[in-house]
Amino acid sequence: MEIFAKRLMATATSTLGKKKIDLFYDVLSPYTWFAFETLMRYKNHWNIEVTLKPMLLAGVNQATGNKPPGLVPNKAIYMNSDLARCATYFNVPFKMPEDPFEMIMVKGSLIPNRFLTAIDMLYPEHLEAASRALWISGWSRGEDFTQPAILAKAGQTAGLSKDQLLKIQEHMTHQATKDRLRAYTDQAIQYGAFGSPTIIYHKNGSPQLFFGSDRFPILAQEIGEEWRGPQPNSTDSKL
Amino acid sequence: MEIFAKRLMATATSTLGKKKIDLFYDVLSPYTWFAFETLMRYKNHWNIEVTLKPMLLAGVNQATGNKPPGLVPNKAIYMNSDLARCATYFNVPFKMPEDPFEMIMVKGSLIPNRFLTAIDMLYPEHLEAASRALWISGWSRGEDFTQPAILAKAGQTAGLSKDQLLKIQEHMTHQATKDRLRAYTDQAIQYGAFGSPTIIYHKNGSPQLFFGSDRFPILAQEIGEEWRGPQPNSTDSKL
Repeated sequence: MEIFAKRLMATATSTLGKKKIDLFYDVLSPYTWFAFETLMRYKNHWNIEVTLKPMLLAGVNQATGNKPPGLVPNKAIYMNSDLARCATYFNVPFKMPEDPFEMIMVKGSLIPNRFLTAIDMLYPEHLEAASRALWISGWSRGEDFTQPAILAKAGQTAGLSKDQLLKIQEHMTHQATKDRLRAYTDQAIQYGAFGSPTIIYHKNGSPQLFFGSDRFPILAQEIGEEWRGPQPNSTDSKL
Repeated sequence: MEIFAKRLMATATSTLGKKKIDLFYDVLSPYTWFAFETLMRYKNHWNIEVTLKPMLLAGVNQATGNKPPGLVPNKAIYMNSDLARCATYFNVPFKMPEDPFEMIMVKGSLIPNRFLTAIDMLYPEHLEAASRALWISGWSRGEDFTQPAILAKAGQTAGLSKDQLLKIQEHMTHQATKDRLRAYTDQAIQYGAFGSPTIIYHKNGSPQLFFGSDRFPILAQEIGEEWRGPQPNSTDSKL
């Protein structure tokens, strides 16, 4: 009976007590990378449970009438230096690709999102690493992550075997995968999303939306945890 | 000779050594209030010299093709809660006025900006207090700061006498005042502005742009000073 009580308490501490946070994200957004890494670092420091939810940014923009910020010329120029400074601040090896317009506006992220969605459905324990590998691929190495070979390489980096990758590749075209990606995108829009990242803190069952990579001090304030900058632990491994 | 050397050193320490920062701002923007108060707090803690430059946000938007964020419905809903949370974080008594659309899109800020520009030209030592008084008027009390009586009240709060206020009122319609407001607005646009606040750090003569109230940790990183949150001194008086 005592062992049962102990196990119950351990379970309660590890899951029931944690504050629930959803991260709706699209690897097409470089600022989202900063938010992703920061949340992944803090999930070991804050009393939170983070659920990763890949979504399609283009779907959010279309549904809400929002436009990518790069379409205002002065904003595009600013983003160039702001992204570089933020990369230093967040300690993320961001590097502007040669043609970000082609990457964002032409190629888009339907393929990499289906890849991540299939991983989430089949091998969810690899989703975090696979997302990171895609960001490194697109926003650090300037690779085209809509190409199967690049996806496969990222998948291997994330620890997936060749057999698993074949299964993922097949699963990417299933209706269930397409439906799941659309469902997460719709869920984000219903929560009030207008871009990526959309962070939802479920405060006593009431969803609170936080947008962007620059609201962590405010999120910390809301969940009653301490914000210690983008690297809560100085021994956090560099990417 | 020793006294001369000491005076020279004191002068060098007080001005020459300071990093120069311009704050281009429009009191029509509530986020700008947070940035303004934060910079005013830090000018006593960081080795910086801040020059306040009132500008017309509508002029910046028109010249750059930028649009107010409130025009995307989901963004407007988000801003409602984001502004309230940020107000708590920055310890600024922001309160959403009854009709922010009317305030921003219909009435605008030409009048309060001419008021601040005239103060800057005639009694610059009152500019900081007058700017703060206008923000409190519009974005805390929900008053219409395009009305002469509201401007006069804010001016008195800022320590201006009735005689001074009459002179300011007359000066507001002078061509020199209009030209100066336009010059600051154009200056901001030339620096690459696309909204308010636009913070320019003059790094060895090269202007570095920072946008918004959420880039202070990044600004601190660039100027080599420590970011200690929005209230660097816990004894800072509350507004």
